[in-house]
Amino acid sequence: MRNLTEANLTDAVLARLQDCDDPRLKAVTAALIRNLHAFIREVEPTPEEWFAGIRFLTATGQICDDKRQEYILLSDTLGVSMLVDAIHNRKPAGATESSVLGPFYVEGAPEQDSGADLAPGEGPGAWVSGVVRDLDGHPLAGALLDVWQTAPNGLYHVQDAEQPEHHLCCKVRADGEGRYRFRTLKPVSYPIPTDGPVGALLERLGRHPYRPAHIHFIVSAPGFKPVITQLFSEGDPYLESDAVFGVKHSLVIDYQPEGDELAVHYDFRLEPVGA
Amino acid sequence: MRNLTEANLTDAVLARLQDCDDPRLKAVTAALIRNLHAFIREVEPTPEEWFAGIRFLTATGQICDDKRQEYILLSDTLGVSMLVDAIHNRKPAGATESSVLGPFYVEGAPEQDSGADLAPGEGPGAWVSGVVRDLDGHPLAGALLDVWQTAPNGLYHVQDAEQPEHHLCCKVRADGEGRYRFRTLKPVSYPIPTDGPVGALLERLGRHPYRPAHIHFIVSAPGFKPVITQLFSEGDPYLESDAVFGVKHSLVIDYQPEGDELAVHYDFRLEPVGA
Repeated sequence: MRNLTEANLTDAVLARLQDCDDPRLKAVTAALIRNLHAFIREVEPTPEEWFAGIRFLTATGQICDDKRQEYILLSDTLGVSMLVDAIHNRKPAGATESSVLGPFYVEGAPEQDSGADLAPGEGPGAWVSGVVRDLDGHPLAGALLDVWQTAPNGLYHVQDAEQPEHHLCCKVRADGEGRYRFRTLKPVSYPIPTDGPVGALLERLGRHPYRPAHIHFIVSAPGFKPVITQLFSEGDPYLESDAVFGVKHSLVIDYQPEGDELAVHYDFRLEPVGA
Repeated sequence: MRNLTEANLTDAVLARLQDCDDPRLKAVTAALIRNLHAFIREVEPTPEEWFAGIRFLTATGQICDDKRQEYILLSDTLGVSMLVDAIHNRKPAGATESSVLGPFYVEGAPEQDSGADLAPGEGPGAWVSGVVRDLDGHPLAGALLDVWQTAPNGLYHVQDAEQPEHHLCCKVRADGEGRYRFRTLKPVSYPIPTDGPVGALLERLGRHPYRPAHIHFIVSAPGFKPVITQLFSEGDPYLESDAVFGVKHSLVIDYQPEGDELAVHYDFRLEPVGA
């Protein structure tokens, strides 16, 4: 191909994949080239605009470290993470819907029996309880719920040197009837990190950086597909405009007063492996 | 939007641009979201594949420094840089075609009169000469040619501490009849940097990293649009498979023996400003 033009360039780049011996990588790269070139042909960037894009991508990589992943944040705020999640987790009717894992999950939270208090001495508390079931409604004895959330200051323990490790996190084991119950603090809405390239982009786009309050869960049971999800608080001002597009109607829960504390009930329904 | 699904997610992300007050940024971002989501919908990445992509983008940013720009290399090797160039430099018939600037241009090469020797004492040399003309063929007196290229070891001076600053670079001023002439060394084909994420990707794609030998030019004259281009060597084994897709038929030149040295002639034709 000795004469590359605006008209034949995309085909020439695709043709250069001919010797790739990894069929999946070849297909993904071909799709990337086609869609990326379509984007360029659509917006016709000036060289200055193109270089501004190069600088943005570079800065987004350079701010990442072992605790910060700005490219996940970019993917989240462009709706890509939730799209990947939605495609990968097409569920049968009745199964608990998924949401994104997010960047703040830390493995190794201590396992506790149902009834655990994640915030002893702090309050008012919120009692979260329910049953883990299969798609027919049968309880799943011994299901495990891996739980994490923000503290009242809007930070996860991993973001905040003032919090003990695994603060407001736990693995709760459901009982013989699939029942789980734990005491936590009602989560708060919070901004995603705004001091990097993604925060600057959101500001230029006229978008706020807030996520509606939520508790993260990974719910699992032997013989069933684990579900990674989040339960959002009814009444939160950001339910309609989550900065990372994570909200689903079926995942909104309504905390109610119960004595001096709050309480909410939610049943999870898992899809069997191989379904 | 409280119930985001695979079907409505792209529209929900686009709707979030409603408060952006920069029309160009809004249009570019909307096109990015549409094409990026189309790519995801087409390839349906697993979460592991998606995260491999996140890691690749992060590593590509992290290897960049003040002398290395891996994102430009990624753009070059996916044909994006040449596509931006082709779209931005649609030329009238007869005008010298453009090619990419590349990452190795350094401003401030010394200006020399026509006839300059860029490689005194090194040889055999290659005499490059020609005339800078307008589209009607009239010579452009006093045109300026900013020239840079690799040394015989395949490195640009900016990549190689062993070479003097601006080695094999110069600004040559054409004479009163638009004629230019300088003595250099015939350039060699060379690999783009292969020790980073882009080199690793090319290897997995079964692609070689070589560029066909070329001399870079920025040719300018008052009242005319400068052209950024490259002249490639006839017979180079990589003319058909330039790693960055820069070759155009009209930019291939054929060095011929002239005594103990080589010689090649090329006329540049510039498009007037406002054409």
